[in-house]
Amino acid sequence: MSDPRYEAMWEKLNLDIPAHDALLGVLGQFYGDIYMSQKGRLQGMEYLDFVLSEVHGLRIQELQEAKSKGHKIIGTFCVFVPEELTLAANAVHIGLCSGADAGTEQAETLLPRNTCALIKSFVGFKMARICPFTESCDMVVGETTCDGKKKAYETFGEMVNMHVMELPQTKSDAARALFRSEVLRYKEKLEALTGNTITVEKLRAAISTVNNKRKALQRLDALRSADPSPISGRDALLIHQVAFYDDPVRFTASINALCDQMETRVKKQEGVTAKGTPRILLSGCPMAVPNWKLPYITESSGAVIVGEESCIGTRNIRNLTDEKTEDMDGLIDALVDRYMEIDCACFTPNTERMGHVVSMAKELKADGVLHYGLMFCQPYASEAIRLEKVLRKEEIPMLAIETDYSMEDMEQLKTRVEAFVEMIR
Amino acid sequence: MSDPRYEAMWEKLNLDIPAHDALLGVLGQFYGDIYMSQKGRLQGMEYLDFVLSEVHGLRIQELQEAKSKGHKIIGTFCVFVPEELTLAANAVHIGLCSGADAGTEQAETLLPRNTCALIKSFVGFKMARICPFTESCDMVVGETTCDGKKKAYETFGEMVNMHVMELPQTKSDAARALFRSEVLRYKEKLEALTGNTITVEKLRAAISTVNNKRKALQRLDALRSADPSPISGRDALLIHQVAFYDDPVRFTASINALCDQMETRVKKQEGVTAKGTPRILLSGCPMAVPNWKLPYITESSGAVIVGEESCIGTRNIRNLTDEKTEDMDGLIDALVDRYMEIDCACFTPNTERMGHVVSMAKELKADGVLHYGLMFCQPYASEAIRLEKVLRKEEIPMLAIETDYSMEDMEQLKTRVEAFVEMIR
Ligand code: SF4
Ligand code: SF4
Ligand code: SF4
Ligand code: SF4
Repeated sequence: MSDPRYEAMWEKLNLDIPAHDALLGVLGQFYGDIYMSQKGRLQGMEYLDFVLSEVHGLRIQELQEAKSKGHKIIGTFCVFVPEELTLAANAVHIGLCSGADAGTEQAETLLPRNTCALIKSFVGFKMARICPFTESCDMVVGETTCDGKKKAYETFGEMVNMHVMELPQTKSDAARALFRSEVLRYKEKLEALTGNTITVEKLRAAISTVNNKRKALQRLDALRSADPSPISGRDALLIHQVAFYDDPVRFTASINALCDQMETRVKKQEGVTAKGTPRILLSGCPMAVPNWKLPYITESSGAVIVGEESCIGTRNIRNLTDEKTEDMDGLIDALVDRYMEIDCACFTPNTERMGHVVSMAKELKADGVLHYGLMFCQPYASEAIRLEKVLRKEEIPMLAIETDYSMEDMEQLKTRVEAFVEMIR
Repeated sequence: MSDPRYEAMWEKLNLDIPAHDALLGVLGQFYGDIYMSQKGRLQGMEYLDFVLSEVHGLRIQELQEAKSKGHKIIGTFCVFVPEELTLAANAVHIGLCSGADAGTEQAETLLPRNTCALIKSFVGFKMARICPFTESCDMVVGETTCDGKKKAYETFGEMVNMHVMELPQTKSDAARALFRSEVLRYKEKLEALTGNTITVEKLRAAISTVNNKRKALQRLDALRSADPSPISGRDALLIHQVAFYDDPVRFTASINALCDQMETRVKKQEGVTAKGTPRILLSGCPMAVPNWKLPYITESSGAVIVGEESCIGTRNIRNLTDEKTEDMDGLIDALVDRYMEIDCACFTPNTERMGHVVSMAKELKADGVLHYGLMFCQPYASEAIRLEKVLRKEEIPMLAIETDYSMEDMEQLKTRVEAFVEMIR
């Protein structure tokens, strides 16, 4: 997948060209195996295939063009960083969460072995110089969510221009006040970096842009309650993943067009699998590009994934920001309210999440929940144990999987998932 | 170590008597091997031997007597919970941090496997009903420090009367404000639980009591800069451990008496080992009773431990609270200032700690640093990597050990520690 059109750009970004070529090669093959092999795909997915094939090409070129026009590029690792503020500062907001284990060996020289694969991946990508997004960033925004990220940013901050937002760990009034002051600090930081003032008008427009993106994704996810599901879980996950780095307005239009097609399908009772195919709700840690291992295994085991209770999924789009307020204080409050509703396992207590999983499972008519934990992710591993009990009461079967980005456990996972699918059939 | 004098009390506390007897038996033998076998011990250590031998007996009886007089017993797991407030509410403040792996199997049914031994221990102690301190508590206070504890308190809170304080993750002004409001919330909680008002007078007296305890421990630790060291690391650790559950006034007097003896020893250039014995600074995670494995291995390998850069050690006693203010607001500020100076790895950044380790190593004339991490403790594992680099610049050798409470790695640890001692000799 090395591409002569972009070679010069990649060199300018100081990528390690051979290592980057190797990554693209693997990515391309992986994508072919997992995505292009699907039957009965929606036509609108061509847009996604194109975006993904150009993830390190055209999209990076767009970022460079934006940069040359004076826009700043902001990289993030968590859905708690308010994209609305970034956009209101005329900057580009990119999700950097990395989903491949390239660079892991290098990362392990700076991080504890017992660190989750996602963290090793973003540190490794930087150390190995293989991620053109990271290299394009003018600023990277971290947040104090889990211990692993919190401490990794200390190291990562020595390699990039870093801004760390403090996230509280509860949802008390005092915690909200802390988060609010951190939202304001991020606003000031953006204004200083970009030289642009975030006005009420710009922020309202940005809130609307992001709300529209979230609404399109809500629409998409709601259509998956149909049986047969009009879209595969892999494709839906890909859409949620692309939401983090595509242009938001263009992306929203494409997803709405895709939803139109899906509606037609649903009316005709057509789908990607036969009616009655076992339906699974994925729940847990985010799956960043190209982390498609478990969805692939699941959908090759005769099931269809009908939802992602995850930050690369519903957790990121469930809540909209109130657009009605007309002054800056009110808009900031609206943002703070919206973000403080996110039910991340890093919070304590985080009982809302249990209710959300149950209601998603019911709305999407899931036959079972597949809990996905990245190895060494303490917050989600803890909640998996609690969730299992909650689901048992609701008589919804759950299988908890812990894994990382290596392919070594493919066979073992396949055996466990197949048995689970057999059980819920 | 089953003891007919206390059997009835233990039954009343609903302990699992056979399991508790077994624990005491192991503890007694362990203590004999590790402590009573030492040569050239200070006479004043008899007090500590007595306190430890009565840890589940006389001390628990005292707690029951205090309870019958209307005092409340407060259990804690972290040095961030202000003991001064507890004492000012006429309550008893106990550190519950558990250091043995009894109950681990039960704990693993409720906690992720990848949880540090300390957390498994306190949950396990509760589930197995073998800790008379836990059973004596009227309230247990948790804090949002690491992910492991934060999430474990959700489960633990279903078994005990729990109050969780939110600790911020940085030391910004907004973070300080959050902590201040949590300190006030703890004060109110204590007042509600005990029915006692925390007055300025009572709080000033409590601050003075705790300051005096910390000063005695500071005095003890400073005397260890002598070569030969007047006290073994095991004994010094035991003193820091007992500080968490003994009566503070009585304890302070005993430690000051012990320090008098140590001063005499230092003047005579007498010590527990020969002058020139390799000197080691322990640094890292707290070692709760009866977690003496690594100190024992180290001091059996021909070295002497001269300091503990740990919360059961210097991190807990380095800072005193300003006693001068005369109004409640000022006292609370003084407490908040004092506590926000603690350099726990759960904070980001936490660069102060690096400086503290270096200065301790120099003041105590340590030949090397032994970094102690509990397996799966992300915060300290991360800092171990950073610390090693800092120490390398200072030409202070460091060995990083990761372990848990099992005895399975004894031989392997012994080999590594012996090699390290050989190297720094
Ligand atoms: S799971 Fe939590 S830490 Fe991770 S992206 Fe989501 S909100 Fe952020
Ligand atoms: S998966 Fe878990 S451990 Fe990894 S970054 Fe997310 S919250 Fe942290
Ligand atoms: S190491 Fe941190 S979390 Fe543990 S007792 Fe010390 S301050 Fe508390
Ligand atoms: S040792 Fe580490 S993981 Fe364990 S309770 Fe303390 S800070 Fe948390």
